[in-house]
Amino acid sequence: MKSILNTEEWLSKPRIIAGVMTGTSLDAIDVSIVRFYKKEGRLKFSVVNSGEFPLNSKLRRRLLSLMRDGGSAKDFSQLNYVLPEYFADAVNKVLIEKRLSVENLDGIGIHGQTLWHQPNYEEFGGIHIRSTLQSGSGSVLATHMGVPVVSDFRAADVAAGGQGAPLVPIFDYEFLSHPEEDTIALNIGGIANITFLPAGKSKSKVVAFDTGPGNMLIDMAMQKFYKQPFDKDGSTAQRGWNFQMLYDYLISNPYIIAPPPKSTGREMFNSVLLEVLDSEQFKRQKPKDQDIIRTLTDFTVGAIAENIKRYANPRARIIVSGGGAKNKFMMLLLAKALPAAKILMSDKIGMPSDEKEAICFAYLAYRTLGGLASNVPRATGAKKDVILGSISIPMPKQ
Amino acid sequence: MKSILNTEEWLSKPRIIAGVMTGTSLDAIDVSIVRFYKKEGRLKFSVVNSGEFPLNSKLRRRLLSLMRDGGSAKDFSQLNYVLPEYFADAVNKVLIEKRLSVENLDGIGIHGQTLWHQPNYEEFGGIHIRSTLQSGSGSVLATHMGVPVVSDFRAADVAAGGQGAPLVPIFDYEFLSHPEEDTIALNIGGIANITFLPAGKSKSKVVAFDTGPGNMLIDMAMQKFYKQPFDKDGSTAQRGWNFQMLYDYLISNPYIIAPPPKSTGREMFNSVLLEVLDSEQFKRQKPKDQDIIRTLTDFTVGAIAENIKRYANPRARIIVSGGGAKNKFMMLLLAKALPAAKILMSDKIGMPSDEKEAICFAYLAYRTLGGLASNVPRATGAKKDVILGSISIPMPKQ
Repeated sequence: MKSILNTEEWLSKPRIIAGVMTGTSLDAIDVSIVRFYKKEGRLKFSVVNSGEFPLNSKLRRRLLSLMRDGGSAKDFSQLNYVLPEYFADAVNKVLIEKRLSVENLDGIGIHGQTLWHQPNYEEFGGIHIRSTLQSGSGSVLATHMGVPVVSDFRAADVAAGGQGAPLVPIFDYEFLSHPEEDTIALNIGGIANITFLPAGKSKSKVVAFDTGPGNMLIDMAMQKFYKQPFDKDGSTAQRGWNFQMLYDYLISNPYIIAPPPKSTGREMFNSVLLEVLDSEQFKRQKPKDQDIIRTLTDFTVGAIAENIKRYANPRARIIVSGGGAKNKFMMLLLAKALPAAKILMSDKIGMPSDEKEAICFAYLAYRTLGGLASNVPRATGAKKDVILGSISIPMPKQ
Repeated sequence: MKSILNTEEWLSKPRIIAGVMTGTSLDAIDVSIVRFYKKEGRLKFSVVNSGEFPLNSKLRRRLLSLMRDGGSAKDFSQLNYVLPEYFADAVNKVLIEKRLSVENLDGIGIHGQTLWHQPNYEEFGGIHIRSTLQSGSGSVLATHMGVPVVSDFRAADVAAGGQGAPLVPIFDYEFLSHPEEDTIALNIGGIANITFLPAGKSKSKVVAFDTGPGNMLIDMAMQKFYKQPFDKDGSTAQRGWNFQMLYDYLISNPYIIAPPPKSTGREMFNSVLLEVLDSEQFKRQKPKDQDIIRTLTDFTVGAIAENIKRYANPRARIIVSGGGAKNKFMMLLLAKALPAAKILMSDKIGMPSDEKEAICFAYLAYRTLGGLASNVPRATGAKKDVILGSISIPMPKQ
């Protein structure tokens, strides 16, 4: 049977795609408008425009409560329809800034808001399954925007026996591989993850996994102790001392040294971890608030470095992206922890550091609309290659 | 921009599609394998095979509890992955009975399990929306089966300002319209709905809506009073007397005479309605259990007849489908309530009565994969025509 998609037609021309990312840190909707085109037979991308839109605080509270306490079927239903309204608004704003409109878009890829990510098999209604849930209906967004939307990118990989994460490796493989140097793409978002790309370009050698928390624990503690959303430049951490007892407690989490493939989320690295600070044993040490922030920063970097030493190459070229790349003190700690590595900020190679995930979901949508598989089974643990996401198609433009 | 779908290719050949329906009554997964083909320029269908698979009781309990009490994000996440396992199993069984395999299928359309259907606008996270939630990931099913799957059929219509229901009218319009006679397609599932097709074939004149409960209240009461899943042939109702006080209470529900477009579900017609029986006023009348069943049957028929008189044509040709068509006593009551109508069972015209919705979702998938819009805006209240559903594409067969 022929493909139901016009894949040749799709892949034959340059395409402009919006990628929409909403991370586990619940801080913002990130949008990147990305142009994909071929040059000398190789696919290239250029970022047309990007924008970051803080989540409405009312919506953020509802999301947190749904993640933590659950809710009614109605809550989960409504969220699917509310999120696309915000996504549409964000994409339109990023287009308008460059005097573009939806007419210029060939597609949109949305990650959706993760409400649950479960890498382990459990029983439900008589069957053992693992699952992941990203809210935000692609069909609703396609109807609002009049542009094909790809959504629900993680489901097919999970159904194929994978963990549904990480999905960035195919992007790293395509655009960051180096012919002679081992390369590590390190993204520090809410969660931190790496893609290890051995020198040359061999998909079967790609290793990728979450190393542990990214900014999530630090952000949580900044909100709790300082009523600030994050530790700007790492200046709070820089004033603090490492609180060894807390560091030892966190770094002993078995996730840190577990071999890949592995992926994690808010289920493991959340505020419950910090409840240990309320115990008598910890209180007796009287850590200052800034010491907690310092220790969480040390832990985040420690988890990254430990994983790079164990499962990648501590002498590699490391391209850092994500919000964490802007935390100057964290970058300093990282350089100290991996003295032989060549650390580069992704901005330096034409990829704005805090937009990598949005760019990546634009690329994943590009691939899906072209009928191409995008999971890296070695990274996710899937048993086979799969085309990621579901496609929602609007009425043809009149 | 050209369509991303190969629509001409798709529509040029006969296609075999599985439709999978799981209704609000939570009784079973209905599957129909349907062949669509052209004859003398007109699209025809023939049912290759069908099957009905009772829902696993463990799963049914979880579904009921999620609908009534809500649950964690994990619960809603897992359900999306569990349902496709049951759908896959059901489709495979129906194929195997005819010595067919997934290789013979061109696509699958799944309705999904409705957990919430909200026709009214309400505030959520700062935005006013209406929504509907059908669980069961198309991407998961496509990965398991290796066949393109269309799912989430109601979202685009809701996003276009419609009620996301009814979706059957396009099927009725295409296959049941009569050149000279007004026709009513009446389906009595958990909910009862009609499509009114004035003589001739004019899409803009089609009216369709839910008339009120179908078998839902009767089934609920049969389970409560008789520990039986439904009232076979209506024999229990036939032994009872109409309990006027209950009938008057139910028929006064404002939904019944509200003008279309309108749609309803388990949110309105549920066991809460029967709590009135526990009041002193009702208890004093000492109705027998069979009187309750009779009255609920009278009410169901009364709501259908009232709507046909007000908003369709009581002298029309009525084609009855759904589980209710097998309730002989209900059919007798219907004939009495609409003495001038010409009532036909859908089986008589080649459409097995309890498979209509599964057949319809096969047809909707056929249309979506062919790039055709399927909502009837006059029936749903949508502001525009939309292509229904999201498409999940498996890897091409090797």
